[in-house]
Formats: sequence, C-alpha cells, structure tokens
Amino acid sequence: MDSSGSVAEPLKPPAMRWWGWGDPAHPVALPPHALGFLRETAGIEPRPRAPVALGGVRLEPSRLSDSLLEQLRAIVGVEGVRDDHEQRVVHAAGKGYPDLVRLRAGEPEGAPDAVVHPAGHDQVRAVLDLCARSSVAVVPFGGGTSVVGGVAPLRGEHGGVLALDMGRMGAILALDGESSTVTVQAGMRAPALERALAVRGLTLGHFPQSFQYVSLGGCAATRSAGQASTGYGAIEKMVLGMRFASPASEISLPAMPATAAGPSVRQLLVGSEGTLGVITELALRVRPAPRERIYEGIFFADFSAGVQALRTLAREHALPDVVRLSDEQETRMSLALAGAGGAKGRLGRAYLGVRGYGHGCLAIVGFEGTPEDVAHRRARAVSLTRACGGLGVGRSPGAAWLNGRFAGPYLRDDLLSQGVMVETLETATQWSNLQRLHREVGRAIAHELAACGTPGLVMCHVSHVYETGASLYFTFIAGQSEGDELGQWRTVKDAACRAILDGGGTITHHHAIGRDHARWMSREVGSAGVDALRALKSELDPTGIMNPGKLFELSPPG
Amino acid sequence: MDSSGSVAEPLKPPAMRWWGWGDPAHPVALPPHALGFLRETAGIEPRPRAPVALGGVRLEPSRLSDSLLEQLRAIVGVEGVRDDHEQRVVHAAGKGYPDLVRLRAGEPEGAPDAVVHPAGHDQVRAVLDLCARSSVAVVPFGGGTSVVGGVAPLRGEHGGVLALDMGRMGAILALDGESSTVTVQAGMRAPALERALAVRGLTLGHFPQSFQYVSLGGCAATRSAGQASTGYGAIEKMVLGMRFASPASEISLPAMPATAAGPSVRQLLVGSEGTLGVITELALRVRPAPRERIYEGIFFADFSAGVQALRTLAREHALPDVVRLSDEQETRMSLALAGAGGAKGRLGRAYLGVRGYGHGCLAIVGFEGTPEDVAHRRARAVSLTRACGGLGVGRSPGAAWLNGRFAGPYLRDDLLSQGVMVETLETATQWSNLQRLHREVGRAIAHELAACGTPGLVMCHVSHVYETGASLYFTFIAGQSEGDELGQWRTVKDAACRAILDGGGTITHHHAIGRDHARWMSREVGSAGVDALRALKSELDPTGIMNPGKLFELSPPG
Repeated sequence: MDSSGSVAEPLKPPAMRWWGWGDPAHPVALPPHALGFLRETAGIEPRPRAPVALGGVRLEPSRLSDSLLEQLRAIVGVEGVRDDHEQRVVHAAGKGYPDLVRLRAGEPEGAPDAVVHPAGHDQVRAVLDLCARSSVAVVPFGGGTSVVGGVAPLRGEHGGVLALDMGRMGAILALDGESSTVTVQAGMRAPALERALAVRGLTLGHFPQSFQYVSLGGCAATRSAGQASTGYGAIEKMVLGMRFASPASEISLPAMPATAAGPSVRQLLVGSEGTLGVITELALRVRPAPRERIYEGIFFADFSAGVQALRTLAREHALPDVVRLSDEQETRMSLALAGAGGAKGRLGRAYLGVRGYGHGCLAIVGFEGTPEDVAHRRARAVSLTRACGGLGVGRSPGAAWLNGRFAGPYLRDDLLSQGVMVETLETATQWSNLQRLHREVGRAIAHELAACGTPGLVMCHVSHVYETGASLYFTFIAGQSEGDELGQWRTVKDAACRAILDGGGTITHHHAIGRDHARWMSREVGSAGVDALRALKSELDPTGIMNPGKLFELSPPG
Repeated sequence: MDSSGSVAEPLKPPAMRWWGWGDPAHPVALPPHALGFLRETAGIEPRPRAPVALGGVRLEPSRLSDSLLEQLRAIVGVEGVRDDHEQRVVHAAGKGYPDLVRLRAGEPEGAPDAVVHPAGHDQVRAVLDLCARSSVAVVPFGGGTSVVGGVAPLRGEHGGVLALDMGRMGAILALDGESSTVTVQAGMRAPALERALAVRGLTLGHFPQSFQYVSLGGCAATRSAGQASTGYGAIEKMVLGMRFASPASEISLPAMPATAAGPSVRQLLVGSEGTLGVITELALRVRPAPRERIYEGIFFADFSAGVQALRTLAREHALPDVVRLSDEQETRMSLALAGAGGAKGRLGRAYLGVRGYGHGCLAIVGFEGTPEDVAHRRARAVSLTRACGGLGVGRSPGAAWLNGRFAGPYLRDDLLSQGVMVETLETATQWSNLQRLHREVGRAIAHELAACGTPGLVMCHVSHVYETGASLYFTFIAGQSEGDELGQWRTVKDAACRAILDGGGTITHHHAIGRDHARWMSREVGSAGVDALRALKSELDPTGIMNPGKLFELSPPG
C-alpha cells in the first residue's frame, strides 16, 4: 500500500452548495403540489426563507499563527493550506439539519481556522504530528456529508482547529482483479471509484443516499451502509485492510480475507470517526458489476404484513439486494409526491383500493447479478412474498425509486427554503422487537412535535434487512418553530433517541455517532465500553487532538 | 440477558482423555496400513510409546492459601472449588502438540493451583474481583481444546493461577425464534446447543473439528471457524450480543442485527482470548436446520486448477456451504488411508489415472438447505467447476469426509503413541497470493523437518473460502526427535510462522493467537496495533490477571 510514486492527481471533487446539499445548479426538486399536500394533511404552512449570501456568513478570525501556517505549508505545499472565507465556510459544518439551519442563517457554530489538503499518507502523518505538538485539533473531512455533527469544527481544549480535507487523496493505488480487491486513497469519492471500476466490469456496490459526494474513507470511518447493503453488505464488510495515521503512530493492516488474530483491529478503526486518527488508504472488496438489474414494487396490506414478508425472505436466504419497505404514512406521502394528480397516481390508488390495499405499504425490491441468478432469486422471492400477501405492482415504482434515490437531500433544501423542517434518524433492532420499536419511536416524535406546537408528519421505512432483524429509517416533517429552530429540533431529536434506546434499538444503524449521538454512547455500549474506547483513544491520540467531541462527549461525565 | 432464575443445571460435560483427545473409550482410529504407508513414503519408523499413568504426572503443590480457597468457596460453593490432582492435571494444558507431548510424559509445564467452577455471570464477576484483589491469575477454560497454548496455566507475575472452568454455565437462557437468535451461557458445549436447536428445527451451523468438546464462549473468544464456515460464516458473524465480565467492570451488549455506533465493541471482545475478561453469556444467530445435505467429491488435475475453480465459485456467488480442497500430497495420503489396499481404492486410482487425474487433488463440497435451494445451488456449482476442469466423483468421498470430520485428533493420539509427530497450522491470504504462500510455507516446513534429521510429509488443504481469498491448513507428519520433541516442534513451527508472515499470510485463520503466536502479533497488527490492544487490556484488566501470556507476550519487548 505504499503510495509513493503511483499517485496521480485525482479529479477535482464535485462542487456542493455551501448552505445545503449538492450541485449548486440543481433545479428545485420539490414537486409543485407537495406544499399543498403538506398543508392539507398536516396543516403545515410554508414561510419562504432564503439562505444568506456567502459573504454574510459570520466567522471569527482564524486563530492560527503565521508560523504554524508556514509549517503547514512546508508539509502540504502553499496551495494545500487555505484560510480564506469560502474554504472556512465550506468546512464549517456537515449536512445535518442543525448544520443547515445555522449555515442558512449565516451563523455557523464555528469554522476551522484553516483547511489543510494533504496529498498522501506521509503528509497526513506530518500534519498530525505538528498539530499534536502545537495543540491544534484536527477534524478529518471527506465528503463533508455527516448528518450527525461528525465534522463540526470543535476545538475542545486546543488553541485552534484544522479541517483535514482528504480531497487530494483520491487515487486508485492498486487493483488486484484476481482477489477482487481495490486499494484506494481514503479521500477517493464513491462515484469516481465506481466509474473506474465500471471500465473493468466491477463494482463496489456501496450506494448511500449521499453517494454522489461521499469519500470512501469517510464511509469506513462512519460505518456507512449503502442502499444495496442487504445484498452487498455495509462498508464494514468491504474493508479488507487499511493504512491508518494517528498522532502517536501508524497502523498498516494488509488486505486479508479473514483472520483470527485477536480482537479485530480492522473493526476498531472502522467506525472510529476520526477520533483515533485518519484512515489514509483502504483495501476494499469489489464484485463483478451486475449484468442484470430488476427493481420493482410490491404492495402489502399493512406494515406488519410487509415486515413478516421481509423476515421470511431473510430466514429463507431469499433476500433481494435492495429492500425498502415504507410504512403506511410514507407510502401515502410517496404516492402523493410521485403524482397524486396524474392519471397514473389515480389509477394506481383505485386499483389498490379495490383489491384491499388502499391503506397499504409499498416495498421496493431490487435484484442485481447475472441474468440467470437474478431470474432464479427473483422467482423465489416473488413466490415467498406472494405467500405473505404481497402484490407485485411492476417495475415503474422501482424505476421511480432508482431515479430519485439520491434526491432526498435536495428535497430537504427546498423544504427548508419554505420554512419546513425535515429530519431523518435511524435505528435497527431484532425482528421480534421491530414493530414495537417502530410504533414507539414514531409516537415519541409525533408527540414531541405536537408539544412544540408544530404537529407534523412522521413516516418510516425498513431499509436494511438482516437474518435477525432490520433497520428503521424515520423521516419527520413539520413547520419550523420560527426563532427557535434548533431548540425545536433538539427537543424532538432527544425524545426520539430516548425512545430508541428505551425500546431496545441501536442509537444508529448507519448515520454514526458524531457529536449528536455522543451523549448516548454509554447507553449503547455501557460506561465500561466507553471507558475501553477512551483508553484506546488515549493510546493512539494522547493529546486528544483528533476530532474532539465526536463519539465521546467533550468532558467525561462525573 | 438476565440469567437469574432461568438457569437450569446443564448436562455434565463429556469426558475427555487427560493425556490426549476425546472419549477415553474411543478405539484406535489409525488404519492398520497407515504406518506402512508412512514408512514407505517418508521413511518414518514407528517407536511405540505410551502415556504415563495419571498418578505419575508431576505437579508442584498448589500455592493458594486456605483463606483464599475459603473465599472462593463462599462465591461458587464447596463443590465449585477443586484442587485435587486429577482436576489440576485435566486443566494443565490444552490440546496442542506440545501440550500432549508434555502431558504424555507426565511433565506438564505447570498446572492451575485450583479449578473454580462458577454457576453464573455474577459468580464470575465475584471471582475476578477476588482474584484481582489477591493477585491471582485467571485462565478461562471452556472446552479446553486450544491448540495454540490458549489455556496454558501461566501465572505471569502473580502469586497463583486459577482455571475458571465454565462447564456449569451451559444453559440456554432464551430462544427468540422470530429473530433467529438464541441466548446461552458461555460454557454451553456446541453439541448440547445443536441438540436443543434440532428439536426446534434450527441449527447454529458451527462445526469446528473440535466440535464435540468446544464451548460457545471459547469459540467466540478465539474467533473459531467451523468446517461449514463458507456457508454459515465463522463464529464472529454469529455473535449478536454478549455479556462480558472483566476484573474492572462489565459490558452488556444486547443482541443487535447491526449498528454503526463507533468502533465495534462486539468485535473487540470476540477474539479477546480471555485476556480482557470472560464472555459469560452470548446471543447467537441461528438458522433453519437444513432439510437436505449433499456432500460429494470433485477431482482436479492439480491444486492450481482446484484453486481457480474455488475462486470462480466465490466470484460468482456460487459457493457451497462446505468447501475443502486438498493438495496433491494430502489427496494421496487421504486415498491411501481410506483404503489403499481395497478394491475401491485401486479402482478409483485406475479410473482417475486414465483420465489424467492420477496426481490430482480431491475437493469435498457440501450443500445444505431446502431441497430446491440445494438443487439449484449445486447445479450452478457443478457447472462452474466442470468448466474449470473439475471431475465429479460422486457422494462416497463426501460421506467418508462427513464420517471422519471430527476424527483428526484421535489419529494424532494414535500417531503420538507410535512416536510420530503430527501437527497442524493454518493461515489465510488473498487469492492472488494463495498458491505462492502454499508453496513457500510447505517448503519451509519440509526444509526444517529435514534439517532436524526427521524428514516428513507436508500436506495442505483450503478449508474456508471467501470472495477475496481463502485459508490454507497445513498438516505435517514426521518421526519425533527422541528426547528433543519440543525443540524439534519449536524449530519447525517458527520456520512455518516466519514463512507465513514473510509470505503475506495472517498468522492464524482460526486457531487464534494463544501463547504460541503471541510473539508474532506485532507483525500481524503492527506494534501500534499491539499497543492499542494493550491499552484496552490495561483499562479492563488493570492488574493483568486475565490469561497472562496469551495474545501478548508476558514482558513487552524493549
């Protein structure tokens, strides 16, 4: 995994709106009738509000000394150190709801004092070494897409904070086709890797909703799960080896199909969220690109019937590669947004109503592979879901889902521009607990929204399915509490987190811990578990410069 | 996972020869013609030697004070504390080659000062607490089947050492059929669990060669992989949650299908080999018991052709549940032992010779599941292997393999009784490196055996197959160096370990680290990786009483 010599300068990372999501040139994604639907069904009144101009974002002056900036430039080059207004704003936050509320108002919580762009592993090590000596916090920054405060530029007890932007480290270092393994620099973006693999008939198969922007190192550091994780596995299943730079040392783990050598150091670094050090290079499993893809819709009479069907598929080892089952509320919303007024929408609803699926739940299932394999697996899955009451509704819902699979964050921006809060959170639990958890978390969110005086819509889908259980992904929409947007968010988020943990779910299935979930870590793994992880951090990052306030709260309680 | 009240006293663990493997009443397993084969092919001359009598095993007197024994009895009951000769001998070693050499000579390296049998999680915690206060080392003891010195009764710097026998903790605590999850006490033996699951139409699917004796906690603590791991996954894929007692604290991780909450604490405790604490309870994934099982043989012209076929199956997602590919030497040996003199053996060899497979390699493949699923998967696999030059040779090799799948350790005892060394070791690597590693490790072992003046047989099989690579399992057989049996073993073992690590393999695919591989850990995960694990240990086991000398060497180098 030595990167010397073989690193070509990667493509320029794609542009992204500093105040929101995605391509700055992207048109409005919200269908014109959506606001009417929200008004009718939930009494949500739009109140248009635009983000401030970039120049209007208030930042404190950078705290770094000229001498430190000079030393950083000596490591990464003059072009690799930036402390201009735009770069600092772009790295001031991730893409969570509170991030966007603050950015749009021009009031980020803070910003990195400078942004450093290393070009390789050795430069990362040198930067960490300098920062440890200088008491400057370091926030690793890949795609910057965290929705849980994972890239919040917190200083902790240090004199300054850098964003370590991995964008220049985007090269493929090796492709071992015989072993289905690709080695990349950790800043490589997922679409760039997929493009390079496609030429060789391969795919990584990792497609989170944030696919268009994520870096692979960021995915590994946060235990990302793609939309096709049911078939391809979450990123943790794909990571075979890595190179890791921490302030105190470095760890090289070669690509290995399996090992029984003690506690898994690989699975310690995967999910470390930049708090132990920086993943600089990654060896990842790849697969043959599918020659056939079939995505289609299946209706169930209710959520319970759908859940039973997914459980049956899991138990019989007949799962599709993509499985998403919306609950009744999300199904209604999806159909409404897809074209409530159109002929297709009316027809669809009439058909389903007649057959007793009028208030039903839509599942999207997707099969990928060789044509023969897809045909066989699909036939089995269709037969099993039919036996569970599933009604196939053809490929157009599948095509619609594929078409909009990365659009969610654009919709959120458009709703924010109308003064409407939209937030998502997720969990996972065992099958026997899934429906109870679904009810209780949904109820807690709805109750708290109402208590805030902003009753809204709460909806959910199962998005990742396992033999013993599944994930739940909640979305809620409500009018913003004008002037107290963050207080409103915090109240509802807290209620949801409590309901998740009280109800036996994990605090996060794939969004990670970041800052927003750090206070819940001791309920997730116990205080002894947190202490064990803190001991690890003390070893690898003795001065505590790595991503302060993430994974662990800034000051240990007690 | 609260065990209060619901714990029924489990079955008495099965008896095992104190000087070797398995049922004391087991007849001699070595076929009569085997010694002739060894003499003819490798010049190995038998020199019969019997183990000493139990009473002849020399032990130092127990070092524990009466007061400490009294305090232990107060925790686990009078019957739960044993320091008689037999119990101390039975817990004096695992089942590795050096263990057996020492035991048979009546000269174990040491023995626990007492054997403590806790009946539940709280008793384990109380024992650890007492031992931490009293500076007494604790060696967790499940089935006692470690072949890497994992249960060696080392004191480290402590005043005494206990074996913590988990045999009384063998109950099923909960079965969640809906979630395909069973919760057990960690001392439960694998056969007892399979019997209990079979009644409900379920299976764990974990069948290591040591199946008849292993405890599930021991499997989890050592990252055990069963013979059907290609289909069912190694134990690390089955562990959903656990309860863990360490001297400093305890950690409870509920059963969870997946989580993105930071570094994996589950995967930190899995593989911890008793050095951080004791797994007391486990939540494990189970599956429907297969209604159909087809095991059969496939011949390949050589090892290389067989490897290419397995790689193709892996790449096409067409792997059987069990895959074992013997190299030329192991194939020859298996055929010889299976009945070289019989009509079938001659016929088989003639047939294969004519068709050009005379020096070929035998693979055993096994499919398990529903009849339809097995039929489909088998047809696909057969067609793919045929395209790679595989020649189906029917079900009798499969039946023979199933029949003898747990017999290896009995054969080893019989060979030891003839003065013949037999030892096994294993690794894994990426596909692109597999054949080179196979050659180099085999060469290193053969070279070192010859250098010891005891040239022998070296053979190997692939036993666990992954998308990106596979495992290699080596067996070597040679005459013992009389009077220097352990020196001979150490020389060859060292050469093999060096060849594995120099050649890019992992030091262990499924035997674990134990004591025998501890000195190689820093080559496996780097010195920073070892330091990180040591930091974890300091947190959970601050006085270092847990299984000293395993995973880490007793005194840190430097």
